[in-house]
Amino acid sequence: MFDNKDSKRTQLEELGEFELIAHLTEALPILQPSTRKGIGDDAAIISLGSHFMAITTDMLVEGVHFDLGFTPLKHLGYKAVVVNLSDVCAMNLIPTQVTVSMAVSNRFPLEALEELYLGIGLAAKQYGIDVVGGDTTSSTKGMILSVTAIGQTDSEKQIAYRSGAEANDLLVVSGDLGGAYMGLQVLRREQEVFKVNPNHQPDLEPYHYIVERQLKPEARKDIIALLESLQVQPTSMIDISDGLSSEILHLCTSSGVGCNLFEDKIPLDPMVISTCEEFKVDSTLAALSGGEDYELLFTISQDDYSKIKGNPDLTVIGHMTEKGSGANLITRGGNSIPLTAQGWNAFGKGHDHAN
Amino acid sequence: MFDNKDSKRTQLEELGEFELIAHLTEALPILQPSTRKGIGDDAAIISLGSHFMAITTDMLVEGVHFDLGFTPLKHLGYKAVVVNLSDVCAMNLIPTQVTVSMAVSNRFPLEALEELYLGIGLAAKQYGIDVVGGDTTSSTKGMILSVTAIGQTDSEKQIAYRSGAEANDLLVVSGDLGGAYMGLQVLRREQEVFKVNPNHQPDLEPYHYIVERQLKPEARKDIIALLESLQVQPTSMIDISDGLSSEILHLCTSSGVGCNLFEDKIPLDPMVISTCEEFKVDSTLAALSGGEDYELLFTISQDDYSKIKGNPDLTVIGHMTEKGSGANLITRGGNSIPLTAQGWNAFGKGHDHAN
Repeated sequence: MFDNKDSKRTQLEELGEFELIAHLTEALPILQPSTRKGIGDDAAIISLGSHFMAITTDMLVEGVHFDLGFTPLKHLGYKAVVVNLSDVCAMNLIPTQVTVSMAVSNRFPLEALEELYLGIGLAAKQYGIDVVGGDTTSSTKGMILSVTAIGQTDSEKQIAYRSGAEANDLLVVSGDLGGAYMGLQVLRREQEVFKVNPNHQPDLEPYHYIVERQLKPEARKDIIALLESLQVQPTSMIDISDGLSSEILHLCTSSGVGCNLFEDKIPLDPMVISTCEEFKVDSTLAALSGGEDYELLFTISQDDYSKIKGNPDLTVIGHMTEKGSGANLITRGGNSIPLTAQGWNAFGKGHDHAN
Repeated sequence: MFDNKDSKRTQLEELGEFELIAHLTEALPILQPSTRKGIGDDAAIISLGSHFMAITTDMLVEGVHFDLGFTPLKHLGYKAVVVNLSDVCAMNLIPTQVTVSMAVSNRFPLEALEELYLGIGLAAKQYGIDVVGGDTTSSTKGMILSVTAIGQTDSEKQIAYRSGAEANDLLVVSGDLGGAYMGLQVLRREQEVFKVNPNHQPDLEPYHYIVERQLKPEARKDIIALLESLQVQPTSMIDISDGLSSEILHLCTSSGVGCNLFEDKIPLDPMVISTCEEFKVDSTLAALSGGEDYELLFTISQDDYSKIKGNPDLTVIGHMTEKGSGANLITRGGNSIPLTAQGWNAFGKGHDHAN
């Protein structure tokens, strides 16, 4: 009982995050009739009488998901809430409540937690959500945050799963992409300079937009309201946390369809393009694999195209195809390249993320 | 931005866990009309149409809440789920779903997580609940688990808050107390012996019941069903995670009442009594301050006494009084001693807990 039996050891790095979760949870049956959707989407869906609730949870670990060397605690609190609200939005629902748990080592004074909670409170105010619970305890190392967010609707039809896309549906993305990733590159460069010269005063102003995309992302609750006002029901939806490429593959796999993504349609902010040039990073790659933009990626019926046409917040970047065609990037040169998931592998070392 | 401004530092140890949470969350307003109860009970209560949902979350940190030196991973998975189900039960509701998040360092192979999930799956099967989501990521040290549990009802009257107790209500506890704490003492002693002599084979059989109380606690879902079948609506309720004394004080504070707890009524298993004698621990103290028994503590109207009288799972241990009388232990000798919270302070060092 007190010894370790290490007869067989499979390193976690050998599995990807999604493969690991699938492996661990495959033996868990769904028993409750109120469980409408379990593991495998941005949020689970539970029925309560005539209502439906989305519930989603994320854990953020210091040194893995965030670096307090360049992340102010107030921003961290804000971001920890927002990334979970984004998952509720990705079900086409408006978030309403969160719980916030944290474990912190004794290196953090009360004043640090107050800063963190200022950010949590700011997110709550900004999104009109309530912090209804949580847990606060000590850790043996660093800070760990776990946030759970919920949203509700009285209309089951409003819920957008990853699995509803059909061939010929249009692929749409909100906002622009690659900013959070390039913001991270800027922050890391400044941190390296600071290590060499502690008197260095970072001038982040020229990179304001992309640094903010990294440190203070927003959940696109406004897009959910916009789609409702336009009377557009997405056929499928996901939020962009791991990068456009990975999220498109999720939609394709869940829906059993293929996809053509057009490189020249991918929305990029001018600052992302200029910073990519400065850092010698391909801007398409920043959008495809950078992640953490927390924009919404969704599909709509072609019949709805006229409703969204010309909206500055929405860009049609491709269309879904038959499953056999696969998921492909159509380059500016007209070549078709299979999309590969280069999103973040939580246990791997290959992808360049905030770890 | 990159430097630490440590102009003022208040150590977290200076505050208790409950004081810390109250301090950090006091500035967070409740904005959503669907939030019926936020922070301050065993679970939050959210309304969804004509239904009501309880949601609760707990974080368990290796080296703080559990010691893998004597906690099998399967038991840990079971316990992590059960302690959250217990919080839903403490609202007088039946739990239905959980999410399970975890962060693990690379010292854990896949096989370890499989063991953990065997326990999670066992708890899900035992309690008929679904695991509907979660997050699996890496940590820089040790294992951190965060579980969120929910339950629902279509009857708001069924919900038992901490705040409903009135003077003259009877104070009732399920099962028996002190077992989990004494089980922990036995496990620690065996671990110390093992450290000195690695060939030592622990014989835990004579302590089976109390070791199981520590390693594999149960949520008293059966008591919720029993109370419903007896048509007893508790006026207030809480689960015993921190020790009887601390939980009684929570009920008294939330309800604005006092309490007389009778020492000779506290239910103790004979094995708890004999192990207390062996370890020279006062058995009343083990029940009052030991914690982790996960029994339900609740108050009922005196009118309901006849319904529960003689039930072997329920013991009347006292009665509520006017607020001015305070919360007191009436000893076997007839003395009245004010109850003090010696429950676990997550940041303190005073209380002897699994840390």
